[in-house]
Amino acid sequence: MEKENQIKVGIIIASDTRSSQINKDETIPLLTDFIEKEGWILVHASIVPDEIDLIKEKLLYYADVLKVDLILTSGGTGPAKRDVTPEATREVIEKEMPGFSEAIRMENFKNVKTSILSRGVTGIRRDTLIINLPGNPQGAIDSLVVIKEAIPHCLEIMQGKGGTHGKHTK
Amino acid sequence: MEKENQIKVGIIIASDTRSSQINKDETIPLLTDFIEKEGWILVHASIVPDEIDLIKEKLLYYADVLKVDLILTSGGTGPAKRDVTPEATREVIEKEMPGFSEAIRMENFKNVKTSILSRGVTGIRRDTLIINLPGNPQGAIDSLVVIKEAIPHCLEIMQGKGGTHGKHTK
Amino acid sequence: MEKENQIKVGIIIASDTRSSQINKDETIPLLTDFIEKEGWILVHASIVPDEIDLIKEKLLYYADVLKVDLILTSGGTGPAKRDVTPEATREVIEKEMPGFSEAIRMENFKNVKTSILSRGVTGIRRDTLIINLPGNPQGAIDSLVVIKEAIPHCLEIMQGKGGTHGKHTK
Repeated sequence: MEKENQIKVGIIIASDTRSSQINKDETIPLLTDFIEKEGWILVHASIVPDEIDLIKEKLLYYADVLKVDLILTSGGTGPAKRDVTPEATREVIEKEMPGFSEAIRMENFKNVKTSILSRGVTGIRRDTLIINLPGNPQGAIDSLVVIKEAIPHCLEIMQGKGGTHGKHTK
Repeated sequence: MEKENQIKVGIIIASDTRSSQINKDETIPLLTDFIEKEGWILVHASIVPDEIDLIKEKLLYYADVLKVDLILTSGGTGPAKRDVTPEATREVIEKEMPGFSEAIRMENFKNVKTSILSRGVTGIRRDTLIINLPGNPQGAIDSLVVIKEAIPHCLEIMQGKGGTHGKHTK
Repeated sequence: MEKENQIKVGIIIASDTRSSQINKDETIPLLTDFIEKEGWILVHASIVPDEIDLIKEKLLYYADVLKVDLILTSGGTGPAKRDVTPEATREVIEKEMPGFSEAIRMENFKNVKTSILSRGVTGIRRDTLIINLPGNPQGAIDSLVVIKEAIPHCLEIMQGKGGTHGKHTK
């Protein structure tokens, strides 16, 4: 049952191999489970190839048409030539929120030294918060755990509402 | 008594509600107390609304006319639509010093998970170091405590002086 | 003996006083020792003054002509007016890898509070990873220790090769 104050979420997986079904996606089920446990609501999930225009188009559709509160992307944040998710994200956000991506990298770095390879960015487009998570399924969940407490409070402030999302942390 | 080697400081509070006296400012007294205990000298303090041009004008006045060593801003660094202090700061600095703002966010994040909502930046304009602190009075002090040891050394290096500020940490 | 899978490294010291031989360089011997112990191979090392065009020229020579895998710079990352290594680096990289420089600052910050004065950046130009290390010899080594595990894995991914560098960490 959708409630007024539930956080509406869209998921975008950026991956050449998963969009062409060479590899099976394991991230959407994990993220869906996480979202439901938080009491958030999954509105839509997609898998797109690592093409800047396709990722951008999906981000705009989720933010401007579906008007989700939160877009979680996974994949395409590394140093490979085909990794363009941060570039696509930067083209649609109006304000960058550097602390989310810094925290994701620095907290995961304690256990996984290659977590610093993620170039993920976080930012705001209108009333939607967009967060780039790593492509590895467990890495995506671990990253979300790091920052999840700050998400409801961020949405309230950026949307100019007081206390509409359940988990106000202030 | 002002001494040659004392660090001269300007404070700018960016807040719609405090500049219009809807809310009382509690940050200036706390920062003033901190500055005096460090042996620094407060030259001027102002409260301005969250308007990019007004914040910018005040930053330029403190840096170029009053020629303070250090400008501490507080407020306007979050995800709200009216928060524009980082944008105003970016327009006047010549060099960004990312480490200060990273350290503020990551150290505070250990205790306060919403500290990553701050988009604060730090940078240099001519001989003035400008640091964006959060708007919450205690958050501003906690942030200053994190970085205070690096400030005198930074001023010496950027101003091309050797050992003129008391607390040289090298 | 150079092997196919050895990481080829170039070192650039940016320093007015060391390039004019006012001060003796102590960083190249330390870095050379570190590189050999890792099983990497030093291709070339240079000392250049803090001039943006000279640093840039050397970066391009190492990346595009010598085609090294990794360029380590040391010096010129601080707040001094002559410090321009990050600016030179930004002009030649195609992709920034923010996690490396964040980790260098935040890990060193635990012991050395002035480590946040480094404005060092990390990024990719074609098949070459460029990392700005601090100018202090021990600071350069300490920084390299923080990130060394991520370097071989980063090179493999960005160069599109699987397992060609020995220390694949995934």
